[in-house]
Amino acid sequence: MIKSRLLAPGPVEVPPAVLEAMARPVVHHRSAPFKELFARVRTRLAEVAMVPGEEVLVVTGSGTAGFEAALLAAVPAGATVLSLHAGKFGERWADMARRFGFRVVVVEEAWGRAIDVDRVRDVLRADPQVAAVTTTHSETSTGVLHDVERIASAVREEAPDALMVVDAVTSLAAAELRPRAWGLDVVVSGSQKGLMVPPGLAFAYLSERAWRRSDELARRGALVPGYYLDLRRERERQAQDQTATTPAVSLIAGLDAALNVLLDEGVEAAWERRAALNEALLSAGEAVGFGRYAERPSPAVAALRTPEGIDAGEVVRQLAKAGIRIGAGQDAAKPHLIRPSVLGYADRFDVVTLAAALEDAVRALGGEAPFGRAAGAALEALAG
Amino acid sequence: MIKSRLLAPGPVEVPPAVLEAMARPVVHHRSAPFKELFARVRTRLAEVAMVPGEEVLVVTGSGTAGFEAALLAAVPAGATVLSLHAGKFGERWADMARRFGFRVVVVEEAWGRAIDVDRVRDVLRADPQVAAVTTTHSETSTGVLHDVERIASAVREEAPDALMVVDAVTSLAAAELRPRAWGLDVVVSGSQKGLMVPPGLAFAYLSERAWRRSDELARRGALVPGYYLDLRRERERQAQDQTATTPAVSLIAGLDAALNVLLDEGVEAAWERRAALNEALLSAGEAVGFGRYAERPSPAVAALRTPEGIDAGEVVRQLAKAGIRIGAGQDAAKPHLIRPSVLGYADRFDVVTLAAALEDAVRALGGEAPFGRAAGAALEALAG
Repeated sequence: MIKSRLLAPGPVEVPPAVLEAMARPVVHHRSAPFKELFARVRTRLAEVAMVPGEEVLVVTGSGTAGFEAALLAAVPAGATVLSLHAGKFGERWADMARRFGFRVVVVEEAWGRAIDVDRVRDVLRADPQVAAVTTTHSETSTGVLHDVERIASAVREEAPDALMVVDAVTSLAAAELRPRAWGLDVVVSGSQKGLMVPPGLAFAYLSERAWRRSDELARRGALVPGYYLDLRRERERQAQDQTATTPAVSLIAGLDAALNVLLDEGVEAAWERRAALNEALLSAGEAVGFGRYAERPSPAVAALRTPEGIDAGEVVRQLAKAGIRIGAGQDAAKPHLIRPSVLGYADRFDVVTLAAALEDAVRALGGEAPFGRAAGAALEALAG
Repeated sequence: MIKSRLLAPGPVEVPPAVLEAMARPVVHHRSAPFKELFARVRTRLAEVAMVPGEEVLVVTGSGTAGFEAALLAAVPAGATVLSLHAGKFGERWADMARRFGFRVVVVEEAWGRAIDVDRVRDVLRADPQVAAVTTTHSETSTGVLHDVERIASAVREEAPDALMVVDAVTSLAAAELRPRAWGLDVVVSGSQKGLMVPPGLAFAYLSERAWRRSDELARRGALVPGYYLDLRRERERQAQDQTATTPAVSLIAGLDAALNVLLDEGVEAAWERRAALNEALLSAGEAVGFGRYAERPSPAVAALRTPEGIDAGEVVRQLAKAGIRIGAGQDAAKPHLIRPSVLGYADRFDVVTLAAALEDAVRALGGEAPFGRAAGAALEALAG
């Protein structure tokens, strides 16, 4: 018997209560029970996003849908967007912005590196046209947590009118994220990561300033048109605990259950727990020859460079044979990067499991890994 | 104790096997088991849509998302779109087309009426610029099944180059729908109607001709840009049993289970069953003073005009008190229209239940309804 374990940086394993909620009979989205559920979910979602009392909009779609909806709601057509990227998702937002006709200026770093705030300052000084700066917070493809707080502060100083647009898809409920204190204008996330819900929902927060900007642009007809992903219409409907089109009600029921689990622990406690688990996982990897890939590790994923001579695809396959699904390296990082993760419904024993599986894989692939070394390193890190 | 029953024209009650599938642990969308599931689902979805062997694309989002994706993939920016409408959803597609900058010409009929094919011919003769004709098949707001076969044939004769774009959100698996035989170019549907899955997935079929058109327009850069709802990218990825962004895997697992139920019965048998059940429901309503609202009734919903002096909102509330959720009338039809439906996981006893509830409501609201008259009419209609 091989037991299945989902230990990738999203989709993640979800709590049993979430699965149970998903299995409940469908509730009509125009009914009073749904409105009640939706109000409760959005209120608590705003707490998780550290913007209590404000509106976090729910979109049926992937994180990409949420990012698109938010970008088009807040940034004027044809404007200059400064896209910070150092991995696959950062690149995606640049591609998206180009596709919609924005002028895109890029600050690019090598995979594994964090965005250099000084370079951001230089570009903003040289290009005062920038209307929005987009960045990922936790870059899932490289395991790097970009320093969004410092980036946002630099943007405020150099380009006070530019909106700060943040992809927090894998960082929400996983890493410290304080939109108000940090002055973030747009924050987007998704259900299948730190919130521990199956994929299919995206979340979008716009600051008061971003909404004012949006209102003004809409009056002038200066926004790129959207229909399904029209956040302005969603804002109007969701203020009435409704949605503009039929939402994925079962996923929203699942989210309600997940928020119970998350808020029972507390958001800040979840940040700490996840950082500690991920750090232990990185230590476990290091103990058997893997290297840290990310300059500034995100708690959402343990990006590990494989030991010399060991192919990352082979490691992923070894773990898959043992029933464990982790993230593989993407694009150019494919041969030497693996991305296990304890972002989901996971605890320290999942870290030990992954540590043991990494040991197994190294041994199976001809490397050296004394029995218990990775597991021991994980346990020691967690005891510390 | 009050038992809850969802008997609205979508979302609908779903089979227990679908709920059970939704409750299974999350499967990673890049894993082999997901690819296998997704391939099986799409193959059978094409069978249900009567286009076996062709590609029906799956989008995470509402039916509106699917319609937008298909419209933008097939119709050149700024082109003339002839929008046929006789209800809320037809209007929505006209609004959407306008929003994206298409020139929109309209053939409008009163709510409850079917689209007049001769008027469509007249407009097409007068306006040879029309690049696409959009219509709903089953107009959920009025309960009318538009004669898409005849409309499509008229479009082919009068404007051979115009694409025929059909909203089959509530008609798929509910009413006869033969995209190939009828020459439909685009067919869009959603999960929460005849397919008996919770909301959150949309489906889009493009004919070979529509894809050729799309390819040619893309080469010329003549399409309205989309990113999340880019069907061209989805076509490429879904041919490899993948999706461009993370899909709602749990809903796809639910869809797999629903397709088992649907294909066990057979699509044509489901059309017949649903038409018979809906006809019986209309007869039941008539037996206690309701009138048929739709000129050409769709099997997806029994649109019933309330008896003189009885407010539709009150009827909806009476049924809600008994635990039964039906569709209310929308917009101007609100005071006099109700929309019960046996589109979902429903059989003849659900029709009898609705018949009894309608009787109850009429009696409670001061109307006349001998005990068993509506239920009897339903049973008689079903015996016929």
